[in-house]
Amino acid sequence: MGEEELEQEQEQVVNPWEVSAKDGGKIDYDKLIDKFGCQRLDQSLIDRVHRLTGSPPHVFLRRGVFFAHRDFNEILDAYEGGKKFYLYTGRGPSSQSLHLGHLIPFMFTKYLQEAFKVPLVIQLTDDEKCMWKNLSVEESKRLARENARDIIACGFDITRTFIFQDFEYVGGSFYNNMVKVEKCVTYNKVVGIFGFSGEDHIGKVSFPAVQAVPSFPSSFPHLFSGKDDLRCLIPCAIDQDPYFRMTRDVAPRIGYHKPSLIESSFFPALQGETGKMSASDPNSAIYVTDSAKEIKNKINKHAFSGGQDSLEKHRKYGANLEVDIPIKYLNFFLEDDDELEHIKKEYAAGRVLTGEVKKRLAEVLTELVERHRLARSAVTDEMVDAFMAVRPLPNMFD
Amino acid sequence: MGEEELEQEQEQVVNPWEVSAKDGGKIDYDKLIDKFGCQRLDQSLIDRVHRLTGSPPHVFLRRGVFFAHRDFNEILDAYEGGKKFYLYTGRGPSSQSLHLGHLIPFMFTKYLQEAFKVPLVIQLTDDEKCMWKNLSVEESKRLARENARDIIACGFDITRTFIFQDFEYVGGSFYNNMVKVEKCVTYNKVVGIFGFSGEDHIGKVSFPAVQAVPSFPSSFPHLFSGKDDLRCLIPCAIDQDPYFRMTRDVAPRIGYHKPSLIESSFFPALQGETGKMSASDPNSAIYVTDSAKEIKNKINKHAFSGGQDSLEKHRKYGANLEVDIPIKYLNFFLEDDDELEHIKKEYAAGRVLTGEVKKRLAEVLTELVERHRLARSAVTDEMVDAFMAVRPLPNMFD
Repeated sequence: MGEEELEQEQEQVVNPWEVSAKDGGKIDYDKLIDKFGCQRLDQSLIDRVHRLTGSPPHVFLRRGVFFAHRDFNEILDAYEGGKKFYLYTGRGPSSQSLHLGHLIPFMFTKYLQEAFKVPLVIQLTDDEKCMWKNLSVEESKRLARENARDIIACGFDITRTFIFQDFEYVGGSFYNNMVKVEKCVTYNKVVGIFGFSGEDHIGKVSFPAVQAVPSFPSSFPHLFSGKDDLRCLIPCAIDQDPYFRMTRDVAPRIGYHKPSLIESSFFPALQGETGKMSASDPNSAIYVTDSAKEIKNKINKHAFSGGQDSLEKHRKYGANLEVDIPIKYLNFFLEDDDELEHIKKEYAAGRVLTGEVKKRLAEVLTELVERHRLARSAVTDEMVDAFMAVRPLPNMFD
Repeated sequence: MGEEELEQEQEQVVNPWEVSAKDGGKIDYDKLIDKFGCQRLDQSLIDRVHRLTGSPPHVFLRRGVFFAHRDFNEILDAYEGGKKFYLYTGRGPSSQSLHLGHLIPFMFTKYLQEAFKVPLVIQLTDDEKCMWKNLSVEESKRLARENARDIIACGFDITRTFIFQDFEYVGGSFYNNMVKVEKCVTYNKVVGIFGFSGEDHIGKVSFPAVQAVPSFPSSFPHLFSGKDDLRCLIPCAIDQDPYFRMTRDVAPRIGYHKPSLIESSFFPALQGETGKMSASDPNSAIYVTDSAKEIKNKINKHAFSGGQDSLEKHRKYGANLEVDIPIKYLNFFLEDDDELEHIKKEYAAGRVLTGEVKKRLAEVLTELVERHRLARSAVTDEMVDAFMAVRPLPNMFD
């Protein structure tokens, strides 16, 4: 094996199916921005969002959770000129229960929808999960509906939101657009972007087109008929970037704007910030179905601490916030800036102990999870049907 | 280049996109049967069709136009035991006008539908032609509807026939089945069957699934709901065999019978029997839109003759029927067995001249084309809509 190959082996890997840092360290997001060719979301853009919408920037913007973008400024330019856009996000429904990491794009998308007052399409790629996870069509469809309940529980506005699952919605203009995209993308190209092999099945090979086409307004004739010029903004985690790099390459060739992106870092596993939470390891994540006791136990047992080994050392040296998972989690979910700053300062100085931070985190997450559980329990089958009905959205640009 | 490669280069090529004989000679159908692994359609099967249906076998059966099959006997076994089946055929709508070769599978399918009294689905692969011929989606859709008029003009029974175009119909159960098929077929597999390269686009790579799934009754829930056990018989030209070899491989893995096939040889070009008629060379084919005069001229100018160079030699040696295109064409379309035998005998003996055979052929084809044109002119837009409506077919098994 040559030196170059060795080097490659140690590189960080970020694609829709794998997120792993270099040498077991942290994901290097600066490198990722360079490699992917996206742009950093800087303070001036955040200020501009504030100014244009009149809404205070979401905590995920203020604290750099959403840290990268592609042509978000163009969306804002158009918006400033009186042109609305639509939001597109999605989820691959591979599990019955969502964890906190899964909620992040939806919480942020809800903020964007409210701030900009724009329509939103949410794609549930049950076909993808059927193909990648070897689930049956029926089980994938069932999971999509279950996940739709969680998504609806995030509080989306039914008059502006269309949720669809591919196994039910693919067809008509959506399928027409799939073929248009497929015509622009060679096998070699998807191998270059996604790393497929000859032993991968042909469903995987063509799937990128399915995730691409919600970026084009004509895929939703019941919403955007005659609005081919409408721009699309996609909030997502940065591991989805490869799909939309491909999509942006294709868009002008088939007569549409390139979709813009606003991209988040990953919500780290309890064990530490080397990748993203995994639905397959229950101890790596807090689920929206976990009880208060489970949350407390998981945090106490598994959350990687940046505190010192002994009380003496902790009082002397303080905690290392750079690696401390409770602090990372509070950074996502403790909305009060002053309280967060206070905790960080005291913890770093050794005046607050790991146990106290973990206790506060358990409170914050328990409240979040409880609120979600209550909201989800109020989502009836009829509401799921209503969100997923192929229908016009009244006043969606008002 | 090694000897083996040279040999391969000279081999005949038969696949959905290319039909060419070895060294510019005739297609060797015996070799094709061996290579593809299908079975010869022998006299005992033809007799059995006669006995089971009470209808005299179609001229295309009697004269070996449909000459090969896969498990057609199983269809007949089941039919004899009281179990009906459904027919599936199709067309890639790449041109506005059909030529005579295009009519053959439809004329034969109409006979099968009447003889067995079974439902029929006809797939118009406008998506395929959009991808392979680089037509726009809109133009492909338009051609599909134009071709539907020609197909309807063949006389199909609207109470037993569902015609669909992929760009309109793909979705729902059909798309669910596409994903099921795609999951069973690797990229390497389609390369082995269809010879795609890395520079082919991903639409081509996954298209075989689109042509496969009409073989499965659940792709038509409005027709065959709860009838997953229903068998499917596919009449087609043998160049489509690769699609259905793949389909038969997948079928039992996703819970369906393997579709049965009944396969035809190619309708030869006017210039001689080295391939099949091509819609791209107007002088190689008689079109259903040709006038009587055009038909006469094309036959006189372009139909390859097995007659001798001079009258004297012709009277002495007679015609070589093996290469004579007018005789081949009469074999397809002159229904009167006695007349055909008489012409062949006299022509082979030199007592009938090429000009006379060509004259008779022009009469036969003009009558056929006139009849088709009349029938087609009676097909209204509303009739096309009616055949293509997603609807139950009343009494389809009666």
